[in-house]
Amino acid sequence: MFSKVTKEDIAVLKSIVGENEVIVGEAISPDYAHDELGGIEKMPEVLVRVTSTEQVSGIMKLAYSRSIPVTVRGSGTGLVGAAVAVEGGILLETTKMNKILKLDKDNSTITVQPGVLLMELAAFAEENDYLYPPDPGEKSATIGGNISTNAGGMRAVKYGVTRDYVRALTVVMPNGEILTLGGAVAKNSSGYSLKDLVIGSEGTLCIITEAVLKLVPLPKVSVSLLVPFPDMKSAIEAVPQIIRSKVVPTAVEYMSRDTIVFSESYLGKKFPDTKNDAYILLTFDGNTEQQVENDMSTVAELCLSIGAIDAYIVDTDERKKSVWSARGAFLEAIKASTTEMDECDVVVPVNKIDEFIKFTHELAKEQGVRIPSFGHAGDGNLHIYICRDELEQDKWEKTLASCFDAMYKRAEEMGGLVSGEHGIGYAKKEYMKKQYGETPILLMQGIKRVFDEKNILNPGKICF
Amino acid sequence: MFSKVTKEDIAVLKSIVGENEVIVGEAISPDYAHDELGGIEKMPEVLVRVTSTEQVSGIMKLAYSRSIPVTVRGSGTGLVGAAVAVEGGILLETTKMNKILKLDKDNSTITVQPGVLLMELAAFAEENDYLYPPDPGEKSATIGGNISTNAGGMRAVKYGVTRDYVRALTVVMPNGEILTLGGAVAKNSSGYSLKDLVIGSEGTLCIITEAVLKLVPLPKVSVSLLVPFPDMKSAIEAVPQIIRSKVVPTAVEYMSRDTIVFSESYLGKKFPDTKNDAYILLTFDGNTEQQVENDMSTVAELCLSIGAIDAYIVDTDERKKSVWSARGAFLEAIKASTTEMDECDVVVPVNKIDEFIKFTHELAKEQGVRIPSFGHAGDGNLHIYICRDELEQDKWEKTLASCFDAMYKRAEEMGGLVSGEHGIGYAKKEYMKKQYGETPILLMQGIKRVFDEKNILNPGKICF
Repeated sequence: MFSKVTKEDIAVLKSIVGENEVIVGEAISPDYAHDELGGIEKMPEVLVRVTSTEQVSGIMKLAYSRSIPVTVRGSGTGLVGAAVAVEGGILLETTKMNKILKLDKDNSTITVQPGVLLMELAAFAEENDYLYPPDPGEKSATIGGNISTNAGGMRAVKYGVTRDYVRALTVVMPNGEILTLGGAVAKNSSGYSLKDLVIGSEGTLCIITEAVLKLVPLPKVSVSLLVPFPDMKSAIEAVPQIIRSKVVPTAVEYMSRDTIVFSESYLGKKFPDTKNDAYILLTFDGNTEQQVENDMSTVAELCLSIGAIDAYIVDTDERKKSVWSARGAFLEAIKASTTEMDECDVVVPVNKIDEFIKFTHELAKEQGVRIPSFGHAGDGNLHIYICRDELEQDKWEKTLASCFDAMYKRAEEMGGLVSGEHGIGYAKKEYMKKQYGETPILLMQGIKRVFDEKNILNPGKICF
Repeated sequence: MFSKVTKEDIAVLKSIVGENEVIVGEAISPDYAHDELGGIEKMPEVLVRVTSTEQVSGIMKLAYSRSIPVTVRGSGTGLVGAAVAVEGGILLETTKMNKILKLDKDNSTITVQPGVLLMELAAFAEENDYLYPPDPGEKSATIGGNISTNAGGMRAVKYGVTRDYVRALTVVMPNGEILTLGGAVAKNSSGYSLKDLVIGSEGTLCIITEAVLKLVPLPKVSVSLLVPFPDMKSAIEAVPQIIRSKVVPTAVEYMSRDTIVFSESYLGKKFPDTKNDAYILLTFDGNTEQQVENDMSTVAELCLSIGAIDAYIVDTDERKKSVWSARGAFLEAIKASTTEMDECDVVVPVNKIDEFIKFTHELAKEQGVRIPSFGHAGDGNLHIYICRDELEQDKWEKTLASCFDAMYKRAEEMGGLVSGEHGIGYAKKEYMKKQYGETPILLMQGIKRVFDEKNILNPGKICF
């Protein structure tokens, strides 16, 4: 049903993007066969690096007329295989579309190309006294990837997720047509929100080539609080109580000693405290010292009254760096601690996290595998890793399937969903289908056909 | 293509909702032929008042099998004819589905039926020390209607719009199937966001029968500031400067003396000041007096430095009531000042509002009509009224069409959109089509077919 890329196609691609940006066959680095997590592997027939909306349009005109599959890839930091060209064809890399195009101070918006890295956007905003609130752990992800997965990150507790900051998108349709969805405006009730449909669609409906994002003024004060607890149960049970107290922290992360120790040895850097079994790490921001201190001391007192061992203010630059660099390295550290792993990115109601983590501990015992986890306690989004360690291939596959089945089933019973922020991609399709049932999947398939009747954009992902 | 409602259908409807909730033919109040604005008129064949999701499901099974059009209506406060049964059939009224079902303090969410009024939801949240941030002017609208238009309201500057507060929806599909879209969770990257597609879809894709909404803690301090300016130009020019100052007001409304005077005479209540041509009304909220006072004085000083006549703190209960009741009555007051009117709900970038209002003043002179306006200066969403006054029918129709053409054209040139929060419905279809061009409309039509292949849900609205 799909055509293979021919010499003639390569010539057309070279005429669109230039000789140097078209890489064919064995000249393509094997890194392009998989994403950050690995596991799902397939080499594209051709890798094309684009620099403009017009180039993307030209490539899609070719792909459309020839029925060649096209998979878009940013930094390749995904964890569900969404950026792997599972049907071969063209892998379209956006990392060279990395320009910040415009900062509009009258409207508090920034216009960017999709290949801008999250860390570049965050730094640029801060230099200009703004905050781009979404703060996923993987800072070297592209903003195009963040939009394509509706990435959430640590500050979702207070500020919401990527979706809440996307005002307008320039996209290229499967046939090469260029559209603008949404507008550089604060409100919109002008027909179905095609923009919101594209956010989180993992490159299956159209290709994002420009985005207008909302910024907020940079809070003048921001302080973190590290709170050790004797065990994970008491740490996590504190979270709904913090939320009931009506203080709104910017972030509430949880972490176990195990995970911190992996991270210490991975980074070769000491964490301020590793004496205790479980920690929550909170951030508070605001425009006055008084307000932030009020919030922080309310939460510190609350935690101490319900069993916290201590409450360290993370205020020196050195301590901030040690704590947040550890937090940023958890995924890499766990990965380095095992031979292979897979991830479960469920989101559950905030008051169910404790129960869910306890369940994963029981599951680990029952299945005889390590299942370390960390994540966003304040918004119910957990990152849970099933580690292969020394398991034989056969046993690993069976164990992994059993663990996933059990975890997604339990999350569903709690009113949770398959993915909080990493997406469905290729790896989590069957679990999503099982949870949603027939009709929502038929609706998604119908929508996919409306956008991409030839099914050339990132085929094999999400709902097909 | 549609079937007429028969005696047999009426009997089935009565068996579903009970004898008293099915009203037929001339027994239906003529109010049900139009919405708040009027202009678009059509009597439904039968009015059915529902109280549960199961009843809605039963009615849709009947309508689906018999190809009878169904139009959903809340309080009928819309302004674009979305709740008018333009193809006849069943008018399904949700105002009796008016229960607040659950307040979940661990997750800061509230579960409501669609017929709960915005003012009821706001009051209930406040009694429980929460804020439901969306604050459209029409407090007697239902929350189902607010979700169906993605209503924005006054606090969008700081808090965003209805979309940002909808976590999950229970909906009934055109064939009667009941689905849950989204989840009672803070993050979601599990396939295309069907929930976000339904938000703002004006009852054309499915029927919302329950919603889980996000609440925020009620800010402890909230103060308004009324700032008179010598003219509208200087009033509106202050707004981008306020935004550049990086203070974030909760709301920034603008109003002209004319509009205030209509409202005074409509309400029979004095406004604190009517000596000046133009006013902006700002609100600030937060958790400490200090923070709110800092914000307010920064903005007051800024306004005074760029031409404001004064800056009144609206702090006494009496003054608050006089100012905000006037603001709440603007639409009704303008309506009462003329024989007939139509509305333009454009949204433009914040720094283009001044230019747009000036343009409407010129247009009013050129066309020989009154065009009063008010609206949300802080988010670029304008409510502009073209008043018929004493114009003959023929001349009125021509003038109205010319005014709309000119205004939507100008808004588009500025990067604006047809509707900020009132929707497209029946009245604004052609203007949206003109702005978007062919492909986005084809995508919307395709999506509509995927949800509702028989086109029985609110036919004739948005994109068909």
